[in-house]
Amino acid sequence: MQASEASIRTAVQAGIEVCFANPGTTELAWVQALDSVPGIRAVLGLFEGVCTGAADGYGRMTDRPALTLLHLGPGFANGIANLHNARRARSPIVNIIGDHASWHLAADAPLTSDIASLAHPVSSWVRSNQSAKDLASDLAAAWAEAAGMPGRIATLISPTDGQLGEGEPARIPERRSTAVVDHDAVSAASRALRGGRHPLLLLGGLALRDAGLRAAARIAGSTGARIVGETFPARLERGGDLPSIERLPYFPDQAIEAIAKHDVIVLAGAVSPVSFFGYEGIPSSLVPPGAEVVTLSSPEADASAALESLADELGARASEAAAASRPDAPIGPLNPGSLGQALAAAQPEGAIVVDEGATSGMPYFLAAAGAPRHSYLGLTGGAIGQGLPCATGAAIGCPDRQVIALQADGSGAYTLQALWTQAREGLNVVTLLCSNRAYRILQVELGRAGVAEPGPIARSLTDLSNPTLDWVELAEGFGVPACRVDTADDLNRQLEIGFAESGPRLIELDLA
Amino acid sequence: MQASEASIRTAVQAGIEVCFANPGTTELAWVQALDSVPGIRAVLGLFEGVCTGAADGYGRMTDRPALTLLHLGPGFANGIANLHNARRARSPIVNIIGDHASWHLAADAPLTSDIASLAHPVSSWVRSNQSAKDLASDLAAAWAEAAGMPGRIATLISPTDGQLGEGEPARIPERRSTAVVDHDAVSAASRALRGGRHPLLLLGGLALRDAGLRAAARIAGSTGARIVGETFPARLERGGDLPSIERLPYFPDQAIEAIAKHDVIVLAGAVSPVSFFGYEGIPSSLVPPGAEVVTLSSPEADASAALESLADELGARASEAAAASRPDAPIGPLNPGSLGQALAAAQPEGAIVVDEGATSGMPYFLAAAGAPRHSYLGLTGGAIGQGLPCATGAAIGCPDRQVIALQADGSGAYTLQALWTQAREGLNVVTLLCSNRAYRILQVELGRAGVAEPGPIARSLTDLSNPTLDWVELAEGFGVPACRVDTADDLNRQLEIGFAESGPRLIELDLA
Repeated sequence: MQASEASIRTAVQAGIEVCFANPGTTELAWVQALDSVPGIRAVLGLFEGVCTGAADGYGRMTDRPALTLLHLGPGFANGIANLHNARRARSPIVNIIGDHASWHLAADAPLTSDIASLAHPVSSWVRSNQSAKDLASDLAAAWAEAAGMPGRIATLISPTDGQLGEGEPARIPERRSTAVVDHDAVSAASRALRGGRHPLLLLGGLALRDAGLRAAARIAGSTGARIVGETFPARLERGGDLPSIERLPYFPDQAIEAIAKHDVIVLAGAVSPVSFFGYEGIPSSLVPPGAEVVTLSSPEADASAALESLADELGARASEAAAASRPDAPIGPLNPGSLGQALAAAQPEGAIVVDEGATSGMPYFLAAAGAPRHSYLGLTGGAIGQGLPCATGAAIGCPDRQVIALQADGSGAYTLQALWTQAREGLNVVTLLCSNRAYRILQVELGRAGVAEPGPIARSLTDLSNPTLDWVELAEGFGVPACRVDTADDLNRQLEIGFAESGPRLIELDLA
Repeated sequence: MQASEASIRTAVQAGIEVCFANPGTTELAWVQALDSVPGIRAVLGLFEGVCTGAADGYGRMTDRPALTLLHLGPGFANGIANLHNARRARSPIVNIIGDHASWHLAADAPLTSDIASLAHPVSSWVRSNQSAKDLASDLAAAWAEAAGMPGRIATLISPTDGQLGEGEPARIPERRSTAVVDHDAVSAASRALRGGRHPLLLLGGLALRDAGLRAAARIAGSTGARIVGETFPARLERGGDLPSIERLPYFPDQAIEAIAKHDVIVLAGAVSPVSFFGYEGIPSSLVPPGAEVVTLSSPEADASAALESLADELGARASEAAAASRPDAPIGPLNPGSLGQALAAAQPEGAIVVDEGATSGMPYFLAAAGAPRHSYLGLTGGAIGQGLPCATGAAIGCPDRQVIALQADGSGAYTLQALWTQAREGLNVVTLLCSNRAYRILQVELGRAGVAEPGPIARSLTDLSNPTLDWVELAEGFGVPACRVDTADDLNRQLEIGFAESGPRLIELDLA
């Protein structure tokens, strides 16, 4: 059979169920194979950043890789920013990038480029298929690399002659194995926590799932350690009876102050904390001088299992269930505070909250500590334009859950085409589009840099008010029903409508 | 003074006048420098693909590099697709990419990535600034590389500590020199043209400007050579009294047939023609078997001067002025044919036509042969999403000329954020948005691949009708007045309005 068909058979056999695609002429054999072999849902994005961001959201919520299908170097390049976020989230993704027929590469046709050079910065595994008979096993190898826990990004470059030649389905290899719990590390962490005056347990990655959080709470109960989560979690389970944790603040001076008193820091699935940007006079590392840092589990290992081993070694008992309570719906003016309160008050059980709200979204996290069980997805890599695509993919992965995109306007404008895919696929995504009509974070950063009076160019380059983006028109232009609210009461009402109805909806919040 | 300020002073001294920007925290010193030093217009794009595509359009029309100012690896990555087009267009561009402070790179903060690996595929020159005192000279070197004729893309990676330290303006170096006319090549081309039974002169790059076209017409008059332009010109001057030339067809079988009879092909600013994609059974090279191919001038050299030398060597006289005439405005139904006719009938003197119309735009080129003088800009690299940004930059570069974006819907959806920059800057761009609600070219390619009945996934992945994109709402959402037409008469009327008014306007053409 055709190698592309053999490869899709292999993908189905491996358990791949979704392909986020924006194919071109060099991917048509892959498209035909998706028709030949049942089992993979093909989801079209109007822009590749939608496809890769959706694969990230899908991977975070299902722990399984989706395929992306992208068109040569430029098409792939459009997806790099969200692959950067996915790499930092340790999401499993298998990228398939079509390329010219191998015999055509030397012609340097207009779309020829160095795809591997583009792929390496966002992929742990890059391979260019060399022949049709290898294509299915190449795809199987990509899957095995991507599908370990935590996930990785594997990128297969696929020339057309390799797609069109003869191939056979490949055996499904073992997926990349997860590092087992290091008992020396558990003992070292146990000693450090018991020996510290002010121990801190910093959680990241897989430690932020149920089992890790419950084990961490046992450890805290037993040792008095403070539990803090990394600033931008790929996926943090929250609410209901789960132990509630704080997050490390974003700005480095605030983060340094927040953990200054700790003499012992135990890392579980988190890297040693560093400043998001390098500011003159502030060190890269946020670790208090002299503090002992002990790695219980790297982000690449099974941090939840390591935490459970540590809790057992400490003889820690189960902690009491958190007393879940959430705020009442706010009344009065609309601002980031009342927005956070309104969303926390209204979000349904099992919601998935994708937070690219930037400055507008900040109060929400605290407000939602006592909300019903939900998953919270952060901007892991700092590459903006992640929120709407990630919400799209999360909704494909979890059709029975309400997805909520808490979305800033500046970053939302990067990849707004995701709204069309939400409409096309009828996804349950409610987008709270926070229109403050500025790159507010940059205005804050200018202030932090001591610029009291920005000049006209600095003001212009951080301003989105001229002209105003009309998000109701933009959403409806892509087929998503939308409305605008400018009071908390309006927002409460629209959230109720949005969560009651099925399909996507956008609520523009006037925060200017 | 601060190195960023010294560098902007140097840029102004070199003649740089525009910066297409989407900065972030790591570029704030550059932003402040733009305020400190008068002379550079800062133009904000809502997405980096808008900035790089605009720099391409600006470069094609002014032959001078603009700056782009982009945020780390992911921000730059968003601009790669249009830099790919710019590289193929040989447009001059200087990219400035902010990076973390050099002392912060080892911390592997969330936004850290291998920027150079991303930059190399679309840059002929990549440098990472090593110290503040070198920053201005690094920028000067980037300018010198970019600003030669034809242009190139130079990319300067700029860590924040190098921006903030002390620097001095740099001496402006000589720009990269253009290869002089090769008189042996002129003689060889002269011999070949005179010796051939059916000689063909294939023009590309700088040969498609006035002087090259007029010299080519002299050569044709003297030798009987047929004049053909490359398929996707960066900038082809047309209309008025300029000699009119045909373009090589896009599909390789058509291109092979079109030039099959030629026994001699002389290349002037064009590369030897190759198929856009590699199709089984069709060779990469479109050159007829046995034909002699002679390079008069590579695309990197001054092809116009080479053509003039050749015309002189041949003793060729000036050709008669072309009899300029254009079609009447069409009546009746709207389709690609009547669209082409309507635009050719209405376009004002001096228009700049950016053609990313794909299948909908094809008839326009023939119809406009006798239109008043205009510049025609093609999709040089095949990376879609070029049209609206390129039109934006062309309008910044040529404020007194009417810019027309002949734009397909699928590719238009890639970078529609360019409309906002058009509104913000009040640019004279009329966009003809061709809504056929399909990736029609892919449907054509499926047919060419022998797929008579595409399956449901192939149909879905090439279909844009579910839901329909409402381009009037999308344009108005970004602040651009818009309307929809579904007859040729409506289109004629709206073109008249659009060309009479100043500022941007979008006309959605219902071609489904």
